[in-house]
Amino acid sequence: MDLSRCSLNSVTIKGSGFTEVADLAEKWGFGGVGLWRDVLEDLDLTAAATRLRQSGLRVSSVCRGGMFPQPTELLRRKTMDDNRLAVDQAHALNADCLYLVCGAAYGDLADARRQVRDGIAELEPYARAAGVRLAVEPMHPMMASSRSVITSLQEANDLVQSIDSDLVGIGIDSYHVWWDAALPDQIARAGDKLFSVQLADWVTPIHGELSSRGMPGEGCIDMTEFVAQCERAGYRGLVEVEVLSDRWWAETALVATEAAIEGLARI
Amino acid sequence: MDLSRCSLNSVTIKGSGFTEVADLAEKWGFGGVGLWRDVLEDLDLTAAATRLRQSGLRVSSVCRGGMFPQPTELLRRKTMDDNRLAVDQAHALNADCLYLVCGAAYGDLADARRQVRDGIAELEPYARAAGVRLAVEPMHPMMASSRSVITSLQEANDLVQSIDSDLVGIGIDSYHVWWDAALPDQIARAGDKLFSVQLADWVTPIHGELSSRGMPGEGCIDMTEFVAQCERAGYRGLVEVEVLSDRWWAETALVATEAAIEGLARI
Repeated sequence: MDLSRCSLNSVTIKGSGFTEVADLAEKWGFGGVGLWRDVLEDLDLTAAATRLRQSGLRVSSVCRGGMFPQPTELLRRKTMDDNRLAVDQAHALNADCLYLVCGAAYGDLADARRQVRDGIAELEPYARAAGVRLAVEPMHPMMASSRSVITSLQEANDLVQSIDSDLVGIGIDSYHVWWDAALPDQIARAGDKLFSVQLADWVTPIHGELSSRGMPGEGCIDMTEFVAQCERAGYRGLVEVEVLSDRWWAETALVATEAAIEGLARI
Repeated sequence: MDLSRCSLNSVTIKGSGFTEVADLAEKWGFGGVGLWRDVLEDLDLTAAATRLRQSGLRVSSVCRGGMFPQPTELLRRKTMDDNRLAVDQAHALNADCLYLVCGAAYGDLADARRQVRDGIAELEPYARAAGVRLAVEPMHPMMASSRSVITSLQEANDLVQSIDSDLVGIGIDSYHVWWDAALPDQIARAGDKLFSVQLADWVTPIHGELSSRGMPGEGCIDMTEFVAQCERAGYRGLVEVEVLSDRWWAETALVATEAAIEGLARI
C-alpha cells in the first residue's frame, strides 16, 4: 500500500511521544497518525493539531473511550467523565474517530452487553455536539474478560444498528476478527459504518492477550484480502498499522516503523 | 455436581498413566474418565475396557481425531489413517464419543473449512461401521491458526447439520465458547447433537493459547448456567472436567484432582 493511504499508530512505537510519532510519520510519508491517549497527556492539543495540519497528517483515530460496564455507579460516572474528555481530545485533533473499547464483563455477560449499549447511547449526544464519530471495536474473544464483551463484527454491527446514529460506527482491526467465518459478510454489512481500519497480524504462539501481535505479513492473516474487503464495503479512510508487540517494542521506534512500512509494502 | 455425573479427563492430571487416572476416578466416585490418546499408547485396550467396566467407569470421550486440513496429500492420508486408529481406540473402549479437533488453516481459512467438512464426511462411514460417535469441538478463536478453524458453536452446528449423520455431533467445552453472545441459542440448537460437555474456566491473564485454563470456579465463566443450558438442551451424559493448566500440572495428580472436585462441588 502507498503510505499516503496509511496511518502510523502511536502504540506501534510505544514509548515515543507525540513529536516523535508525528516526525516519523511525516518523514516516511504516512497519510496520518493514530494516537493513543497516553501521548496526549500534558500536550497542547491546539498546537499539536496545527503541527499535524502543517505536515499534512490526519489523525485517523484516537484510542480510546469505552469501558462502559463498571462494578459501581461511582466508577461508571467517572468512566463517563473520562469518555467525554476523550471526545474533547478527538475533537481538538479533528480525528476521524474515537475508538471505543467497550469494556469487560463484571459477572454476567448479557448484563455487560446491556451496559455497553446504554453507555454508548448516553455518550452519543456529547459526541454529536462535538462532531466526533465513535468507532465500536469488536475485539478478540480472548479479551472478553479483560477489555471488551463485543467479540465479533456481527455483534458490533448489531449494536451499531440498534443505536442507529450516523456518529456511531465500527473500527475494525484485522487481529481481532480475522478468524471469523462470517467476516466477509459482516464487513460488507458494515458498509459506510466502517469508520476505521487497523492492521496487525496474528502470530502463533501468543504469550498473552495483548501484545503478541505481528507486523502485517509476519503472521497468518491475508492482509491484502482484508483491506480489499474493507474497500469493497466502501472504506476510503486511512489504514492504520497498530501493532502491540513486546518484540517490536524492544526495538527502537525507527526500526519498528521500518518493519511496519515493509509489511505495508507487501499489501 | 454429584461426581457420579462427572468424568475426570486424563489431561487434567497430565503425566498420569491410564491406571492412575482410573484409580483416581474410581477412588473419588467419578462416573467416568475422558482419555487423551497419549495414555492409550502401548495399552492393552481390551484389558483397559474390562478394568473400567469392573469399576463402573464409563469412557466419556477419547481425544482426539481431526486435523483434517493438511498441506500435502501424503500428510492428509497419514492423518486419515491416524483418525481411523482413533476411531478403533474409541470403539475398543466403548467411548461415548471421539473428539474432533478439526485442524488449523494452512493459508486460506475458507479452504481449510472445506477440508474439515470433507474430512469428516470421509471418516464418517468408518466411524459408523465401528459405532463411534464423532464430536466436532468448536475451539477458541485464538486457536484458529494452531488447532481448529471451527471457532464457534454456530459454525460447528452448521457443519454438523450439513453432514447430517446421527454419528456426527458436538463436543462443547466451556473454555472455548463462553464469550459468545449467541451461545445460549446455539446450545439449544445443538439439542440431541450434543455428544459431550467439558468444563474449564477462563482465567485472565492467559500466558498462551493452550494451557492457561482454570478449574471450574477459578475464572469468570458461569459454570452452573453453562451446565444448565446444556441440560435444558437435552444433554444427559457425563460432564468432563478437562483443564489444561501449567499451574495445576505442576501439582501432583492427587492435588489437581482434589481441586477439580472442589470446583465441581460448587456447580
